[in-house]
Amino acid sequence: MAHNTEQLTLYTAKICPYAHRVEIALAEAKASFKSYQIDLQNKPEWYAPQVNPASKVPAVAYGGPDVPPETPSPKSTKIAESLVLVEFVADLYPESGLLPKDPVLRAKARFFIEVVSSKFSPSYVGFVLRGESYDNVLKGVEAIQELLPESGKYAIGDEFTIADAAFTPFFARLKIAAENEFGKYELGSGRKLLDALESPKYAKFNAYAGRLLERPSVKATLDEDSIRSTYGVRFART
Amino acid sequence: MAHNTEQLTLYTAKICPYAHRVEIALAEAKASFKSYQIDLQNKPEWYAPQVNPASKVPAVAYGGPDVPPETPSPKSTKIAESLVLVEFVADLYPESGLLPKDPVLRAKARFFIEVVSSKFSPSYVGFVLRGESYDNVLKGVEAIQELLPESGKYAIGDEFTIADAAFTPFFARLKIAAENEFGKYELGSGRKLLDALESPKYAKFNAYAGRLLERPSVKATLDEDSIRSTYGVRFART
Ligand SMILES: N[C@@H](CCC(=O)N[C@@H](CS)C(=O)NCC(=O)O)C(=O)O
Ligand SMILES: N[C@@H](CCC(=O)N[C@@H](CS)C(=O)NCC(=O)O)C(=O)O
Repeated sequence: MAHNTEQLTLYTAKICPYAHRVEIALAEAKASFKSYQIDLQNKPEWYAPQVNPASKVPAVAYGGPDVPPETPSPKSTKIAESLVLVEFVADLYPESGLLPKDPVLRAKARFFIEVVSSKFSPSYVGFVLRGESYDNVLKGVEAIQELLPESGKYAIGDEFTIADAAFTPFFARLKIAAENEFGKYELGSGRKLLDALESPKYAKFNAYAGRLLERPSVKATLDEDSIRSTYGVRFART
Repeated sequence: MAHNTEQLTLYTAKICPYAHRVEIALAEAKASFKSYQIDLQNKPEWYAPQVNPASKVPAVAYGGPDVPPETPSPKSTKIAESLVLVEFVADLYPESGLLPKDPVLRAKARFFIEVVSSKFSPSYVGFVLRGESYDNVLKGVEAIQELLPESGKYAIGDEFTIADAAFTPFFARLKIAAENEFGKYELGSGRKLLDALESPKYAKFNAYAGRLLERPSVKATLDEDSIRSTYGVRFART
């Protein structure tokens, strides 16, 4: 089928953790693709009708003629939803290791993502975007830590998989937000959260998180400056 | 690897739509497995510590020695979460067709499931379990109908996939509830919802839903009597 010779266009936005998942997966797969930044404050008129009716990033246009991203072809397949897309990249590039071949390990990767979705990312949203207490962030960290393997560098072992790609963007943004006191929470809570995370009881989590931020696919796709400046405006403390 | 020669034990409950997804997938795969009913009102003490810490069904014990379900072996792998499990069954039995080989079709199946999870199943829970208006059920039906292919019997085409397995249990329970006025909603709203669904504008959805209920894997795993009697007690109108 040689699916990965078809054109692939990613509609994305630097600030968006969901879109970042797909960028990491594509970088891991060493995919060649076109990337197009959607300004979420001022989305192009053609985006919802021609790419993603839900009007969100990430979305992919796959296959069809090789056209400029601003004039998507009706002949390409449009695919949305970050978790659908990381699986799609893993399917297109089986040799990337984004999903191992063993069904049990695949299930572990997907269960890890389920915990990210049900426990970690809501706690980030609660703390940063809604100013709730960071207790739930610590609970989310504990839930992730419990899943980490006895030995192994990443979520389910020594290979970097879709589980890591799904988690990293949320952790990276949480760290940037806390370090700069960006968020709806009380000034100082960012520092307090980072101090709480220093506790030896989170050592395993911290070692894992540190490795994620050093991963070349993450370094190549995380635009810290851009996130800092977007958060700086959104969470300006006057 | 011949993973599907390992023992597989499913912990399930007839009433549970999430567990039903996995039963349908296993039936489609013609898997041989052991099934154990968990009484959700009175769960066995060993279930949470030895099978699923979240204390929910479905869960699977996979591999390890061939032991009775009541005495799970620490040597088997325990896997929870219905959507993780339907993917697991598809991975164990690639020849089942539960997931096609084409990455684009796989993405379509997963996107369909995302819509079931974000639009259809919450509307069922809202209407039946919380007594909310059935308007959202009709919106959920419309969201599903929009995804149905131009031609093709099932969610993404002519093959029955994990998308159908994920949707059917919720539709089947909605129908049983509405036909019997089981739910927290006002008496008569079950009938009204069914009447509304008769509208020609839902013809495509109804044809699809009818095919699902005729599917042998669904007929073999849907225990209507048991669901009726559980709902009858839970939603008794005095
Ligand atoms: N469930 C979606 C969520 C995507 C999402 O919420 N993206 C945001 C940006 S982070 C978005 O595009 N929102 C629309 C907007 O800002 O108008 C996914 O996993 O892809
Ligand atoms: N997200 C889970 C949900 C499973 C779930 O909620 N199962 C219910 C029964 S339908 C359960 O076991 N609840 C625990 C209880 O009743 O104590 C999945 O998809 O498997």
